[in-house]
Amino acid sequence: MENFYALIAAGGHGTRLWPMSRAKVPKQMLPLIEDHSMFRTSVERISDLFAPEDIFVVTGQDYAEELRGEVPHIPAANFIVEPYAKNTAPALALALATIQARDPEAIVAILTADHHIADPDKFRRVLGAARQIAQDGRIVTLGITPLHPATGYGYIQQGPPIMEVDDFTVYQSKRFTEKPDIVRATQFLASGRYSWNSGMFIWKVSSAMSAFEQFQPAIYAMCTYLQSAFSAPDYQQKLEGIWDTMPKLSIDVAIMEKAENIAVIPVDIGWSDIGSWSSLYHILPQDSFGNCIKGDATDNRVILDTRDTLVYSDRLTVAIGVEDIVVVDTDDVLLICHKDRTQDVKQVVDYLKENGSEEYL
Amino acid sequence: MENFYALIAAGGHGTRLWPMSRAKVPKQMLPLIEDHSMFRTSVERISDLFAPEDIFVVTGQDYAEELRGEVPHIPAANFIVEPYAKNTAPALALALATIQARDPEAIVAILTADHHIADPDKFRRVLGAARQIAQDGRIVTLGITPLHPATGYGYIQQGPPIMEVDDFTVYQSKRFTEKPDIVRATQFLASGRYSWNSGMFIWKVSSAMSAFEQFQPAIYAMCTYLQSAFSAPDYQQKLEGIWDTMPKLSIDVAIMEKAENIAVIPVDIGWSDIGSWSSLYHILPQDSFGNCIKGDATDNRVILDTRDTLVYSDRLTVAIGVEDIVVVDTDDVLLICHKDRTQDVKQVVDYLKENGSEEYL
Repeated sequence: MENFYALIAAGGHGTRLWPMSRAKVPKQMLPLIEDHSMFRTSVERISDLFAPEDIFVVTGQDYAEELRGEVPHIPAANFIVEPYAKNTAPALALALATIQARDPEAIVAILTADHHIADPDKFRRVLGAARQIAQDGRIVTLGITPLHPATGYGYIQQGPPIMEVDDFTVYQSKRFTEKPDIVRATQFLASGRYSWNSGMFIWKVSSAMSAFEQFQPAIYAMCTYLQSAFSAPDYQQKLEGIWDTMPKLSIDVAIMEKAENIAVIPVDIGWSDIGSWSSLYHILPQDSFGNCIKGDATDNRVILDTRDTLVYSDRLTVAIGVEDIVVVDTDDVLLICHKDRTQDVKQVVDYLKENGSEEYL
Repeated sequence: MENFYALIAAGGHGTRLWPMSRAKVPKQMLPLIEDHSMFRTSVERISDLFAPEDIFVVTGQDYAEELRGEVPHIPAANFIVEPYAKNTAPALALALATIQARDPEAIVAILTADHHIADPDKFRRVLGAARQIAQDGRIVTLGITPLHPATGYGYIQQGPPIMEVDDFTVYQSKRFTEKPDIVRATQFLASGRYSWNSGMFIWKVSSAMSAFEQFQPAIYAMCTYLQSAFSAPDYQQKLEGIWDTMPKLSIDVAIMEKAENIAVIPVDIGWSDIGSWSSLYHILPQDSFGNCIKGDATDNRVILDTRDTLVYSDRLTVAIGVEDIVVVDTDDVLLICHKDRTQDVKQVVDYLKENGSEEYL
């Protein structure tokens, strides 16, 4: 589609799938569901909609080379590499400035690199619808119709409906909220007027830059300056000099919670952010006993009277008489976790960080 | 004590503690309870009773060198090495012939290399008592007072009491039985007239050789021939030539189930054959949550809300929200087993054998 670009945010270093996701090998690099990386799946999912040269990726220094290798058909110059992580707002502003320099009329879909979408066809259709609405200058967010009172996501409160596009209803967004407690999450779900914040949104690059100018003038000023210096021989040096001063802000805090002209399209596209081993288990195909065995151990395992269990292992793995367990077996770490407790993996990572066990992070 | 010798049978290659016990590293070589091998513990347990030169060991070719290294104070010549495993009867007959050649008046305590004895003091006292009774020419067996209707052990049925020695009552042995089913085991326990067969017995070497002559004349003839050839330059060649013909028989089947003059001393010495991961768990010290963490991971672990769990691992190991689990993490195999199901490890080993996965055995 004309003037339509994808910008995949692939700089995250989430630890909730620890010990498989690590600082050096974050979730988007892992072959969690297919036998290639989540990042490559994220690119392939939109390849019917965007030509390779219209797909941009923003990521960190440590990940850029490997991610380029995953999608060699995308021009290397389309990878915007932040010197180091400063949360999403600076990274996206820099990437948007890059796209704007190429096409001032660009409409940009900001997408994620490590989420699962079970209905990619509907996802592509809603992106097309969102592009039409973004033409007006609106920030269009994809809201996920909630299926349960999740406390792990931010929510978007819907205002009045604005219009119908294709078979999607578009609402004014009334408010972005942070992760609620279970009582509020239950109220949100019951009201039918909230969706999960998927972190995906579609906007004209000119609207995006205006929003930065209005709400984050420092980020705007620095990115505009960098935009003018893209072809300078000392660009990299300038970028690194400026990056230290960039405020660490998420795009939600920097823009979304402040902007007025936000629309939300609630959709059910079988979305999951795979925020825990348990949510990954529910996405993966299971055998008739509810087990899911991944890794090189797949053809080299013995599972005896074991149910509803997830195993990631490259070694001969034997499970006898257990149920509802997650086993993750990496070179240097072994995790055995009850399936109802996988959110506590984060506590372990925090503990290791506090105890100086950096080698395991 | 004069003419008193220990003969430790250390040739076993049990698989019930798989994947830690392996064909190349059987249970007696593992540091399961202390930080040295079960074999070394078995030797140290009797070192107050026997001088190093009075302790003999019978074992297999594959294990001899490592076992010698574990107890360097025992003369290397006291290690009787069978060319390959032929079950216990031929191995013990060969060892007894060796001891007889050194001391025809020898009384020999045949002991195990991979069992746990919580009360070693009482164990040494009962050995002293057994030695006195063996003087008469009786085969004296140590019976273990049963604590539950175990189906994994053979039982010895007590006949009338013969005498009291120290504070031990000695009974005529009426019958050796194979492992019973649970109904019979319950009857045995209720009768108060059965003990578990510990596999430990004390006899004069002359009585032992007579028993072999009577019940196993082929083994007797071959061992007597070898005895006469001990100092021959081609002894090893003769041994290997003869070994092929040795019948594969256990000492119970070969002698104990046939001999008449057997006495049994039932004792409670806190004995365990450590026949499963679960029985090992019950021997090991546990923390206040009932967990037991062994291996190099001991100082390098995170255990969150986990109870009654046994972990053997040399890696960073994290357990969250599980209970009654056994985790055994070796270089090439990972076992996760419910604590009530550890006897099924044997099924897995059988399965691997049938499927030609010899490298894991």
